[in-house]
Amino acid sequence: MTLQIALVSDQIAMDYLRPAFSARFPQAKLHRIDTEVQELDALAEIDAVVCWSPPVGLLARMPRLRLIQSVGAGTDHITRDTTLPDVPIHRIVDSEMAAGMNAYVAWAVVHGQRHMGGYIESQRRAAWEESPVVPPGRHRVGIAGLGVLGQSAARALAAIGYRVRGWSRSPKQGLPEGVEAYHGDAARADFLAGCDTLVCLLPLTDDTHRILNAELFAQLPRGARLVNAGRGAQLVQDDLLAALESGQIASAVLDAFVEEPLPQAHPFWHHPRITVTPHIATRTGPEAIARQTEDNLKRLSV
Amino acid sequence: MTLQIALVSDQIAMDYLRPAFSARFPQAKLHRIDTEVQELDALAEIDAVVCWSPPVGLLARMPRLRLIQSVGAGTDHITRDTTLPDVPIHRIVDSEMAAGMNAYVAWAVVHGQRHMGGYIESQRRAAWEESPVVPPGRHRVGIAGLGVLGQSAARALAAIGYRVRGWSRSPKQGLPEGVEAYHGDAARADFLAGCDTLVCLLPLTDDTHRILNAELFAQLPRGARLVNAGRGAQLVQDDLLAALESGQIASAVLDAFVEEPLPQAHPFWHHPRITVTPHIATRTGPEAIARQTEDNLKRLSV
Repeated sequence: MTLQIALVSDQIAMDYLRPAFSARFPQAKLHRIDTEVQELDALAEIDAVVCWSPPVGLLARMPRLRLIQSVGAGTDHITRDTTLPDVPIHRIVDSEMAAGMNAYVAWAVVHGQRHMGGYIESQRRAAWEESPVVPPGRHRVGIAGLGVLGQSAARALAAIGYRVRGWSRSPKQGLPEGVEAYHGDAARADFLAGCDTLVCLLPLTDDTHRILNAELFAQLPRGARLVNAGRGAQLVQDDLLAALESGQIASAVLDAFVEEPLPQAHPFWHHPRITVTPHIATRTGPEAIARQTEDNLKRLSV
Repeated sequence: MTLQIALVSDQIAMDYLRPAFSARFPQAKLHRIDTEVQELDALAEIDAVVCWSPPVGLLARMPRLRLIQSVGAGTDHITRDTTLPDVPIHRIVDSEMAAGMNAYVAWAVVHGQRHMGGYIESQRRAAWEESPVVPPGRHRVGIAGLGVLGQSAARALAAIGYRVRGWSRSPKQGLPEGVEAYHGDAARADFLAGCDTLVCLLPLTDDTHRILNAELFAQLPRGARLVNAGRGAQLVQDDLLAALESGQIASAVLDAFVEEPLPQAHPFWHHPRITVTPHIATRTGPEAIARQTEDNLKRLSV
């Protein structure tokens, strides 16, 4: 029987995956449901779904489904659907993805800490305006979330010369040398009190939903900087705006939003101390997604 | 006899060093000649000069001078004065300075490679516009100059995940793992051919004066990106503008300029693919400068 794979998303055009999947699965039939293609006759014949934010209720209508493959490091965009069939969900883990995140986080941390946004503003006015140059060794960066991406970012920031600390729900082994580790609710306040920049790389769960809120901001040093490369739903948007207004937070670099694309009228776009990037912190290459999908399908067949 | 130290610069206000030097040399007499103070009666009594770009001819008028201390990693801003007395010149080497440069170079490389400047532009229009996300492992960064700062930057970029190569005039030992090393004129073309981003951290010498010119740009892959955190005089400005115009160079992040502050009317300010920063890539803290000055004076007394 022909393997049938559906590329599914209600947020992004999935056609970018087609060449890699055609090459990796030359015998398979590929389908799409996404922002451009809204209908699919063959629901009953789909074996595997490769997806980013699949429409709620859709996967329950695939009786032959054996594999749900996320195209990202997270699965919350899938598990928000409470009608999911009982089928294994796999996420992508690859070093390219971690390296991409390293680059984004390094840029975002330096951008705030070294006033780079201010220099870009000054350039528009042809103004030569220096800001204080504080060396990385006197700036404490805290990473919330020490999964593959968080550990990798911690290592990269420490290599630059930042003082790095990390927080995770449960204790972690094998953290990069020099990274101060905190874990659990009891250590959270201590961790936050030493974050001149806080980088959120937490997975989205019930516990981390709206975790970046006024109460947490108040536990940071005054004038701390925020980088959210986790999920939009982890941030309470109004609390961030209030903390920027009061000076408790000095600036924020945000890559993920509750609603994406971020609506035109959203106050984040024109806030002078918020940098918005369009959920590009990292990506997994189509080849890696196709290869890992194949591996995961093979494991199912054993 | 009272130790007399002069803080000297024709470019920057040196008063920022006074507290650290007062603390380190409580018995000494401190003098200034800089952008705010232009006269000094006590030239004949100065023992040591702590300087950034001292006025040409001034140091020759200090018969008691025993030490010329640069406040930076380079000494070209001193040795441009052909009338210098025969007195040891010391430069600052400290890990804070290297870490500061790591941060700047990491930011500048990611800024170009990951189209961050484009996202900042898009944000002004409240436009959610993605650019291709190429993982660091598929982007080759070449560091020209493998002194303390170059080696440190190479290590940091490799930790992020970039493919790093380095070029130096003479062979270097102890390069970071994974960094491809090139040296000498014979290897220069090979080195340049594999630089998707070229980072200049060379010292300014007769050999590196105007080294970033049309001939060099032509040896880079088409669409390469440039980061100059070396010296302004290493860049042929018109050649860069032509290379940006032709597309040979895709973008440039520049921290050093022939004339600083960069003049208001300079075309770099308003070029859409040039990012200008006001020579802030890194700094040495006043305490480190005072401490190293003390160490260097002690060595002279032995």
